[in-house]
Amino acid sequence: MPPAPGDHDARREDVSRAVWQVLAEKGFGGLTLRAVAAAMGVSTGMLTHYFPAKRALITHALDLLETRTAGRPRREHPAPGLPTVRAMLLDILPLTPGDTARNRVWVSSWDLSLADDGLAGAQADRYARLRSSLHPHLEAARELGELPAHVDPAQLAATAVAFTHGLVVQALFDPTRFPEDTQVALLDAFLASLAAS
Amino acid sequence: MPPAPGDHDARREDVSRAVWQVLAEKGFGGLTLRAVAAAMGVSTGMLTHYFPAKRALITHALDLLETRTAGRPRREHPAPGLPTVRAMLLDILPLTPGDTARNRVWVSSWDLSLADDGLAGAQADRYARLRSSLHPHLEAARELGELPAHVDPAQLAATAVAFTHGLVVQALFDPTRFPEDTQVALLDAFLASLAAS
Repeated sequence: MPPAPGDHDARREDVSRAVWQVLAEKGFGGLTLRAVAAAMGVSTGMLTHYFPAKRALITHALDLLETRTAGRPRREHPAPGLPTVRAMLLDILPLTPGDTARNRVWVSSWDLSLADDGLAGAQADRYARLRSSLHPHLEAARELGELPAHVDPAQLAATAVAFTHGLVVQALFDPTRFPEDTQVALLDAFLASLAAS
Repeated sequence: MPPAPGDHDARREDVSRAVWQVLAEKGFGGLTLRAVAAAMGVSTGMLTHYFPAKRALITHALDLLETRTAGRPRREHPAPGLPTVRAMLLDILPLTPGDTARNRVWVSSWDLSLADDGLAGAQADRYARLRSSLHPHLEAARELGELPAHVDPAQLAATAVAFTHGLVVQALFDPTRFPEDTQVALLDAFLASLAAS
C-alpha cells in the first residue's frame, strides 16, 4: 500500500529537518547523503528517492536556507530612522541558537557560492536587496537629523551590512568573546559613531 | 636514478602552485587530488606521493594560505594613529588580483574551520591577533586626538575588523559594484565617521 499523502508530507519534513541538522553541525562541506541518512536513522538508499544526485541535495539545502531566513521571526520596526536600522541589524546577528545556526549555514554556503557563477550572482543580488532594504531607513534617519546631512545612505547601507556580517563571522568563531551583550554593545557603538559623525 | 634534490624542491613548488590555483578557482569545496592533478597535467597517482590522504592535502592548503598571507607585501606604516590603521586595513581588502585570490581562499576556508573545533580555535586566535595588532594604533590615534577620548580601542578594533571583513565578502561576490576605488572610499568614510564621533 502506498503511504497516505499526509505520511509523505511528514516524511519530507523529517528529511528537511535532518538536512538542516547536518548543515548546522557540519556546513555544506559535510553535507552528504550518508550524513543526512545517519541523522534520520535511515538507509542512504531511502534518501535517493528524494535526492537522486548530490546536486539535488545541495539545491534543497539552499532552498531550506532561503525559506528559513525569509520565515524567521523579526523585530517590529520601533520608529522610523535609526531605531529601525538597529532592529534590522539585530535581526541579522547570531543572538539566539536559531540565529547562530542560520548564520553558520550562510557563512558555510559562501564557499559553494563563490565557486559557481549562478550562485555567486544570486548572493550578489541578495546583498543588493539587503542594502536596498536599509536604504530608506538610513535616508529617513538623515531627514530626521539622526545622521549628518552629508552622509550618503547608499554608502552607509554597504558599511552597515559590512560591519554586521563581519561581526557575525567573528562571533561564530569566538562565541565566548562575543556573547549577545557584546554584539549588541558593538552594534550600538557603531550606530552612535555614525550618528555623531 | 633518483631526482636531484633541486628537482625535488622544484616539483614541490609546482604542486603548491597547482594547489593554490585550484583553491583560488574552486575553494576548499573543490579541492581534490583529481583537480590538483588536472591543474598540473599529471596523474592522480603521482600526487599520492605528496598527499597520501585528503587530510594531508587540506593541511597543505591551509599552510599555504597561512604562508602566503604572512609573506604578502604590506604597506609601510605612514604615521602613527589612524594613517597606520588605514594602511593595515587596506592590506586586507581585495584591491589586487593576488589579494582577491587570498581573500577568496580565506572566506572559503571558513566552512571547513567552522566544522572542526581545532581549526575554529585557530581561526578565533587569528582574529584575536588581528584585533590586537590594530589595538596600539587605535590607542595612539586616541592619544593624538584623532579619535574622541571616550572610545574603547579594543571595541574599535573588533568594529574595524568586522567592517573590513564584511566589505571583503561583499566585494568578492560583487566586484563590479565594489571596484577598488569604491572599497577605498568606503574605508575612508568609515574611518572619518570614527574620527568625528
